[in-house]
Amino acid sequence: MQSLQTPLLDKIRIPADLRKFPEAELPQIAAELRKEMIDAVSQTGGHLGAGLGVIELTVALHYVFETPADRIIWDVGHQAYPHKILTGRRDRIRTLRQEHGLSGFTKRSESEYDPFGAAHSSTSISAGLGMAVARDLSGGKNHVISVIGDGAMSAGMAYEAMNNAGALDARLIVILNDNDMSIAPPSGAMSAYLARLASGKTYSEIRDLGKKLTGYLGRRVERTVTRAVEHARGFVTGGTMFEELGFYHIGPIDGHNLEHLVPVLKNVRDNGDGPVLIHVVTKKGKGYAPAEAAADKYHGVNKFDVITGAQAKAPANAPAYTRVFAESLVQEAQEDPKIVAVTAAMPSGTGLDLFGEAFPKRTFDVGIAEQHAVTFAAGMATEGYKPFCAIYSTFLQRAYDQVVHDVAIQNLPVRFAIDRAGFVGADGATHCGAFDTTYLASLPGMVMMAASDEAELRHMVRTAAAYDDGPIAFRYPRGNGVGIDLPERGSVLELGKGRVVREGSKVALLSFGTRLADCLLAADELDAAGLSTTVADARFAKPLDQDLIRRLAREHEVLITVEEGAVGGFGAQVLHYLAHDGLLDHGLKVRPLVLPDSFVDHAKPEKMYADAGLDAAGITRAVFAALGRPQAAARA
Amino acid sequence: MQSLQTPLLDKIRIPADLRKFPEAELPQIAAELRKEMIDAVSQTGGHLGAGLGVIELTVALHYVFETPADRIIWDVGHQAYPHKILTGRRDRIRTLRQEHGLSGFTKRSESEYDPFGAAHSSTSISAGLGMAVARDLSGGKNHVISVIGDGAMSAGMAYEAMNNAGALDARLIVILNDNDMSIAPPSGAMSAYLARLASGKTYSEIRDLGKKLTGYLGRRVERTVTRAVEHARGFVTGGTMFEELGFYHIGPIDGHNLEHLVPVLKNVRDNGDGPVLIHVVTKKGKGYAPAEAAADKYHGVNKFDVITGAQAKAPANAPAYTRVFAESLVQEAQEDPKIVAVTAAMPSGTGLDLFGEAFPKRTFDVGIAEQHAVTFAAGMATEGYKPFCAIYSTFLQRAYDQVVHDVAIQNLPVRFAIDRAGFVGADGATHCGAFDTTYLASLPGMVMMAASDEAELRHMVRTAAAYDDGPIAFRYPRGNGVGIDLPERGSVLELGKGRVVREGSKVALLSFGTRLADCLLAADELDAAGLSTTVADARFAKPLDQDLIRRLAREHEVLITVEEGAVGGFGAQVLHYLAHDGLLDHGLKVRPLVLPDSFVDHAKPEKMYADAGLDAAGITRAVFAALGRPQAAARA
Repeated sequence: MQSLQTPLLDKIRIPADLRKFPEAELPQIAAELRKEMIDAVSQTGGHLGAGLGVIELTVALHYVFETPADRIIWDVGHQAYPHKILTGRRDRIRTLRQEHGLSGFTKRSESEYDPFGAAHSSTSISAGLGMAVARDLSGGKNHVISVIGDGAMSAGMAYEAMNNAGALDARLIVILNDNDMSIAPPSGAMSAYLARLASGKTYSEIRDLGKKLTGYLGRRVERTVTRAVEHARGFVTGGTMFEELGFYHIGPIDGHNLEHLVPVLKNVRDNGDGPVLIHVVTKKGKGYAPAEAAADKYHGVNKFDVITGAQAKAPANAPAYTRVFAESLVQEAQEDPKIVAVTAAMPSGTGLDLFGEAFPKRTFDVGIAEQHAVTFAAGMATEGYKPFCAIYSTFLQRAYDQVVHDVAIQNLPVRFAIDRAGFVGADGATHCGAFDTTYLASLPGMVMMAASDEAELRHMVRTAAAYDDGPIAFRYPRGNGVGIDLPERGSVLELGKGRVVREGSKVALLSFGTRLADCLLAADELDAAGLSTTVADARFAKPLDQDLIRRLAREHEVLITVEEGAVGGFGAQVLHYLAHDGLLDHGLKVRPLVLPDSFVDHAKPEKMYADAGLDAAGITRAVFAALGRPQAAARA
Repeated sequence: MQSLQTPLLDKIRIPADLRKFPEAELPQIAAELRKEMIDAVSQTGGHLGAGLGVIELTVALHYVFETPADRIIWDVGHQAYPHKILTGRRDRIRTLRQEHGLSGFTKRSESEYDPFGAAHSSTSISAGLGMAVARDLSGGKNHVISVIGDGAMSAGMAYEAMNNAGALDARLIVILNDNDMSIAPPSGAMSAYLARLASGKTYSEIRDLGKKLTGYLGRRVERTVTRAVEHARGFVTGGTMFEELGFYHIGPIDGHNLEHLVPVLKNVRDNGDGPVLIHVVTKKGKGYAPAEAAADKYHGVNKFDVITGAQAKAPANAPAYTRVFAESLVQEAQEDPKIVAVTAAMPSGTGLDLFGEAFPKRTFDVGIAEQHAVTFAAGMATEGYKPFCAIYSTFLQRAYDQVVHDVAIQNLPVRFAIDRAGFVGADGATHCGAFDTTYLASLPGMVMMAASDEAELRHMVRTAAAYDDGPIAFRYPRGNGVGIDLPERGSVLELGKGRVVREGSKVALLSFGTRLADCLLAADELDAAGLSTTVADARFAKPLDQDLIRRLAREHEVLITVEEGAVGGFGAQVLHYLAHDGLLDHGLKVRPLVLPDSFVDHAKPEKMYADAGLDAAGITRAVFAALGRPQAAARA
């Protein structure tokens, strides 16, 4: 860091310092900020492209508005690294996504400059409108600015919020950060023109001009669209939607030109009422050649070399679960033409990009639209297709009612491939898949599986493809498998049957999911301590393997359930069965191990498991404690 | 029924029979269908106004399209009574919403003419698009028609689906059932004109004409809007949204004129490709004077007198929980100016219409937009306001991710007033509030309460108003309280503390919510059988009253938890605590009573409780069974 020359940035600790500079020096500050951010992320890894795209916008916003009294809400939050650098967190920017370090997203508890935390997409207009309404109720005068990307506008939640904002006619500033460069060239000239006007003419004159100019662009873009996100993009950037919903629409403005941004923002700040939309065009990865040249614009990166852009590769001696899922699904789809796949704007994250290459007509990317994704899949299932909805555990929360109302109640065979189940390391609490077993296994008729290793995941993909009697879900974590040999093709698992992996007599460890490996390590330790230990892989949280559970309960003194999920999930299902079958009536020492009852901040996964008591040592401790041997527990 | 003269309708069992009639007789068939429906609902109660509004549309759709091969998806489904009469269910139409009778919504298991079940709003375009895509993949030729109301278009899910439909350019017919009469007069003339054209000109000519004509209307309407649902209405009926999203837009058509409807539908059936939107204007309650005259257009009615329209009143000797909630909240808001209320288009159902009368500026109806509602409330909470989100248990499922991501993770003090928790009688499985305790109590930092009677509900409103340390929820059922005296004002309950209602020594019944009354009845029976019984009201599922639970576990042989919710909720929390505290190690006979693991069809509530084993007899049986006295259990 010390080798970077950032003389102006060095004088800025908080935005009030920034606001002391003359406007002419802002480009230099932005350049220094860009250098600083690139250097920091090269050391930490994280989201790079999005932040680079909003360097100038970040500078302009904090320069024009009186943060933190004025509220800036960054949608999704992964573009907020430059904002963090300018708002008192530069000294910690190289702790990004590290344990006890800065979050990779905005976070209320981290700074008063983060009025709303985000990590899931498309929440910023709702939150901003709430703040704007609160301000009006209390007679305040501060500004509220929601900054939202064009992709995030494909989510229904953003539409709901825009509609409500228009209806309330509240004073809210929405900045549409449009980072599709297809319309950049015309917007350059227009942007300059608008900026010149902003210094001279009245607000309403600019407003009306912006409208006229953007109408043409919007239509032009719309003709070229193909995919859903792109489709919404054409729609929303055209401006018609915002205008029809009651927003004043200004732009497009060149989002990398401070001489354009600052006067327009000042004009909006000082004039007008009601909701206003400023259309800003930016370039993801802007100002860092390797990022600009990359297809993904360095969206999410590992540590990298600043000069060459070469990223450090994470050592992988086993394939990622995501890839095993995708390859297995391609295999099954080669055998079964009814298999189709649905993703909500995450083709790469879910591995469905592979599926899409093999079966482009059977792959549906519906946009950031989980609600629609699930009911769309349900519609296909009614017609005899076999949809696999591949959605991260926490994002599927967005479609919970659709899972209940459109899938489960109708008992439709929709397959849910639930990636990122459990801890997710550096992505932190907002992405931690803690609740899926709880919210799915409680649904009548749902089949709920968890893979204990990559071979099991392959079996579960095949099992889900073969199962056609109702909804079925399988969960698997972020990261790499355990390195086990993969079968050529998966086998169809028997419904509601687990497997005993290791036989013992005193202690039973019943695992649901990938904690199985740590159960086996714990069993070694327990055996060494004279406690003969059975280890079983439940495979199913629903239907439960009642025979297996009964046997474990009857033949052991201690039964520990282990899962990477919240209370109310697998352990709750087991306890409920045990209680009703009378298996607790005679003094079984049962302990359900689950994720802690707190939102766990980002850290290394190993550390997270240890803290949660879900590693081998934690499992061993739980057994000793159940047996009344706390000293042994303390040593474990 | 026999006294009705319905000679033509009598000849129609299924739509194929309808299609044998000449077009000229359709108005007469529609008139008979209307009479039949009014008569049926006068006997059963249910949704009246919506069905009356689509009589002609229903006749026209089944006349023009080859149902069931062509799929008609009725959004929400409560307007589908006339559809049921025409599709083989006339002989059972007077069993609507009765046990073992017809559902009040569409339902796949009921008829092949119901290709998709619905009851929650705004799902029909997603489902229809799934069907259309499936048809195209398999080379089918059938039509898919989604019929959606203008109000349902305020939901983000509908927007997500429209966007995806436009992007895919799939052949899907969406009928926008616009039942706001504010644009009826002009549409009458235009409708006739369009119908005349439909018989002669080509599809694309009508299409383009429709566009031009509706552009004007859309703008005209939009200026008058105020509330969010109305706002979206103006937006979507203007047609711009559909066109921008890639739909062909036709209309508006007079939805009560078969001579207009039939030719336009035929024209669309036989021409064109890609998604098409037909804008149909209807009048809710049409053709039944008392309904047309009523403000709510007889949306949902009790049994009524056909001649006078006078509805039977349900005998109420205690106030409805909904009303107690609303009055209590008004009381609290009089004391605390920071209290605000949020509803998602259910002001009357949630009781917030009362709040709105008292505090119009502090009441926010955001449209059918639960996702936005919750995050909007979170935004207000960040600014020191005290939002009460009043949302039914099953509708809050729509906002689950927002509860997790925007409220719980940020620990914002949003108050959730969860009405319709538990069984809902005639509304059936889609509205049964089974899961809220499971999906809320599993969230870190959430406070989760259930009211055992209307006085407790009043206390909980005050408790929620006073609690400012994080999110808090309280649930209460549909229907009337138990008739207990209401305190002048609620008291602030101690957090995480239950109450012992009755002391005993052998059996403990620990109730969460309104099953408390049946627990007390069960205790009488158990005492009479020599089993001294303690009854406690848990009040909190989170934080748990650990002292109380420990005492109950230690001092009794049997512990029964009782709740009106699915597995994974209150009982799971109690069992988890018991297991970890070692309280199960010595042979406590614990039995968690929960809702059955199935979706329960509509019936009388008393019957539903009995079947679920959650009435006094069921609770008593569970105790006897736990004690190994099955004979006594069988007698109970």
